[in-house]
Amino acid sequence: MSLSMYQASIPVFIHMMGNLSAILEKAAGYATAKKIEPSVLVNARLAPDMRPLSFQIQVASDLAKGCAARLAGIDAPSMPDTETTFPELQERIAKTIAFLKTVSAAQVDGSEEREIVLKLRGQETKFKGQPYLLTFALPNFYFHITTAYAILRHNGLDIGKSDFLGVR
Amino acid sequence: MSLSMYQASIPVFIHMMGNLSAILEKAAGYATAKKIEPSVLVNARLAPDMRPLSFQIQVASDLAKGCAARLAGIDAPSMPDTETTFPELQERIAKTIAFLKTVSAAQVDGSEEREIVLKLRGQETKFKGQPYLLTFALPNFYFHITTAYAILRHNGLDIGKSDFLGVR
Repeated sequence: MSLSMYQASIPVFIHMMGNLSAILEKAAGYATAKKIEPSVLVNARLAPDMRPLSFQIQVASDLAKGCAARLAGIDAPSMPDTETTFPELQERIAKTIAFLKTVSAAQVDGSEEREIVLKLRGQETKFKGQPYLLTFALPNFYFHITTAYAILRHNGLDIGKSDFLGVR
Repeated sequence: MSLSMYQASIPVFIHMMGNLSAILEKAAGYATAKKIEPSVLVNARLAPDMRPLSFQIQVASDLAKGCAARLAGIDAPSMPDTETTFPELQERIAKTIAFLKTVSAAQVDGSEEREIVLKLRGQETKFKGQPYLLTFALPNFYFHITTAYAILRHNGLDIGKSDFLGVR
């Protein structure tokens, strides 16, 4: 079995979105236990000009479903970034995972050379499928999952690397 | 050209370690400009029980060189985690990149099924090469690079996503 575009993307996204869901579940429980207004955590940031927790999850979702769709040559479901509560963020994650599960290896495999066109800062940027996955989608995706983790960790949530990696 | 174990690992590590080096360069310049004692940044953390910036870089280095070596079936150079200054951290990164550049596609390709044995929390854990790369080494590597970024961003360094992704 040799590494494929599907294996390097879809199962990774599904696994990490599941880990993110479990981390948010802990965050919601922490808010309840410590009588923290949940919106304080949902809106928490690491710097005044960085985006809040909710945004990190919305963008992680966008990167996962956008990458899956672009590699497969299909449309991703639109999700309008209206989530403001833990249950809404969980629903966003669940919908993202549900979409990812509809994308098959047959659709994604062989997309190494597929032309991907993105609008970045208002400019069209062209990638081939493989560098798009390896140098744009995956690092960006991990960036936002880790930032979500870091925001919660900074705010006192008792989580560790095993929560991030999903080692249970 | 189809995705290979080499392409999904070594060039990714080299690219991201280079981005990390450029971010640390900015951090050193920021310390000078703002008359911040550099060790304040080198020892900065996001939470009292999280590890400092220096550790994030040491572990990112360990993950990159460890993964490269394990997939290639060779030994990684030992680096004893003694760095306490920006120049020392830069040297650590440079040595890591220099090692990564010695690892060839011929050594790494075909390592999907290679047995990898790690000691995690004192216990032997066995992986095959592909899940080791996709579910352990890469997420872990990105976790520490992003955490280094987040520590510096939280401490006022003016960096953005393009620094993280290395889009110049």
